[in-house]
Amino acid sequence: MYQLIDGKAISEQVKLEIAEEVKLMVDAGKRPPHLAVIIVGHDGGSETYVAHKVKSCEQVGFKSTKIAFEANVTEAELLSKINELNRDNELDGFIVQLPLPKHISEQKVIESIDYHKDVDGFHPVNVGRMSIGLPCYVSATPYGILELIKRYNIPTSGKNCVVIGRSNIVGKPIASLMMQKGYPGDATVTVCHSRTKNLKEICLQADIIIAALGQPGFLSADMVKEGASVIDVGTTRVPSEKTKSGFRLSGDVKFDEVAPKCSFITPVPGGVGPMTIVSLLKNTLLAAKKEIY
Amino acid sequence: MYQLIDGKAISEQVKLEIAEEVKLMVDAGKRPPHLAVIIVGHDGGSETYVAHKVKSCEQVGFKSTKIAFEANVTEAELLSKINELNRDNELDGFIVQLPLPKHISEQKVIESIDYHKDVDGFHPVNVGRMSIGLPCYVSATPYGILELIKRYNIPTSGKNCVVIGRSNIVGKPIASLMMQKGYPGDATVTVCHSRTKNLKEICLQADIIIAALGQPGFLSADMVKEGASVIDVGTTRVPSEKTKSGFRLSGDVKFDEVAPKCSFITPVPGGVGPMTIVSLLKNTLLAAKKEIY
Repeated sequence: MYQLIDGKAISEQVKLEIAEEVKLMVDAGKRPPHLAVIIVGHDGGSETYVAHKVKSCEQVGFKSTKIAFEANVTEAELLSKINELNRDNELDGFIVQLPLPKHISEQKVIESIDYHKDVDGFHPVNVGRMSIGLPCYVSATPYGILELIKRYNIPTSGKNCVVIGRSNIVGKPIASLMMQKGYPGDATVTVCHSRTKNLKEICLQADIIIAALGQPGFLSADMVKEGASVIDVGTTRVPSEKTKSGFRLSGDVKFDEVAPKCSFITPVPGGVGPMTIVSLLKNTLLAAKKEIY
Repeated sequence: MYQLIDGKAISEQVKLEIAEEVKLMVDAGKRPPHLAVIIVGHDGGSETYVAHKVKSCEQVGFKSTKIAFEANVTEAELLSKINELNRDNELDGFIVQLPLPKHISEQKVIESIDYHKDVDGFHPVNVGRMSIGLPCYVSATPYGILELIKRYNIPTSGKNCVVIGRSNIVGKPIASLMMQKGYPGDATVTVCHSRTKNLKEICLQADIIIAALGQPGFLSADMVKEGASVIDVGTTRVPSEKTKSGFRLSGDVKFDEVAPKCSFITPVPGGVGPMTIVSLLKNTLLAAKKEIY
């Protein structure tokens, strides 16, 4: 019988742990950690994410500041605000919610954030330090995946870990982390992608599969060996007649047929998803405690 | 019949190409590219490498400056010199020859180099940008490997590439580069290391093997499939009665038995080795032309 990785429960537990730490900080006379979130325009998904982030800050006792710009804000105005936040000593970390309107360079924005406050972990300094194995802010999704692996004591040393997808925000960083020395890590990591020719064969050798390609129901039972652990990072909105919203979230894994073969498996929703905001909170706490830099 | 990858010949060819570019720059009234090399102490290997680097600069028409410190230089003195070089407008790039004496933090030194001048590609900004797929200075060995693959038109798209070794200066970066979109890249990359359990089985599935573990003669014929391409990054000094120096360089590959199975293979010496200095020259040229930043 497979064990379901309950990301929702773990995320609530981690939040309680963070809240406890914040309480100790405040009891000791320190100000609580402070996260700022910049949002540009009115993308529905972005507004929902940002609202969740602000709410989660409240839950754990963080101070949060939401800074909203209209979609026609200039790149210069945005960069000016970022510079202001970089210099704000009362602010531990901040993020700029992506995607941004086309007239603004996301990479320029990311690189203009002081990496000491880059709690999204997207700045090249944090990406580079992660690759080298130095302390850094690890971006939300890979951080969340590691946390789930740790909380369920999933063995990784010497295991074959197959990562499907080579995105900068999931595939590459989780591959990099799973091959680092220590736990969770020390895995033999294979990164597969659209050009991979023998994907099924490769997946069948995997002890751990991390599916992060964003293709609903891509991973089927015939691609998974008995006893594997499967982490499903996919969260694609697909139309649904069963929900009020008219859509549901679909993972990259055919859960119903894959789960019976697994040792551990994450559901979608309720697996990796809830962990991402918790990762952001963790990074902000690390920033407030100056544990990384 | 296998094709020998002649790194020595390619390196000479690339040097001629660089010299040609330098000539055009100088003819156009620009100053030639200028590389500085800092060396600390009198490690024999380091002195030889630095002498080669200085000589290669001369060969292609670069200006070079060698800055030598005694082994008892303080970290502060070294960092002060680095700051001076960072600000020197007549200098395009510089490197600090590693290893450094134990009382000096190599990581601190690396991070104190302005990444715009970090032609060794070790600064986290360059490592991070490489991972993300942005223009950057790629470090010497991975850069050299890519150049060899390109010059011999070795196919990489959709190929299984196995990297043995997960060092920060070879294994991790070459893995990162081989999985990027484009050529050379688009490979399905597996990174193996000391914790890998089924290495032979994994190697037997590889179209390309990049051996970078520093263990003489590690890769034997029974680990290589017919038609594979093998890049040998190992350069370990082993005792030898046949040479005047009393040692010879040994690769990670049992060349004599592996070569007959290969499509392409690098020898040691004369394979990847000669390419590393060329990579440094290439990066310095890119710096002088401001093509990266």
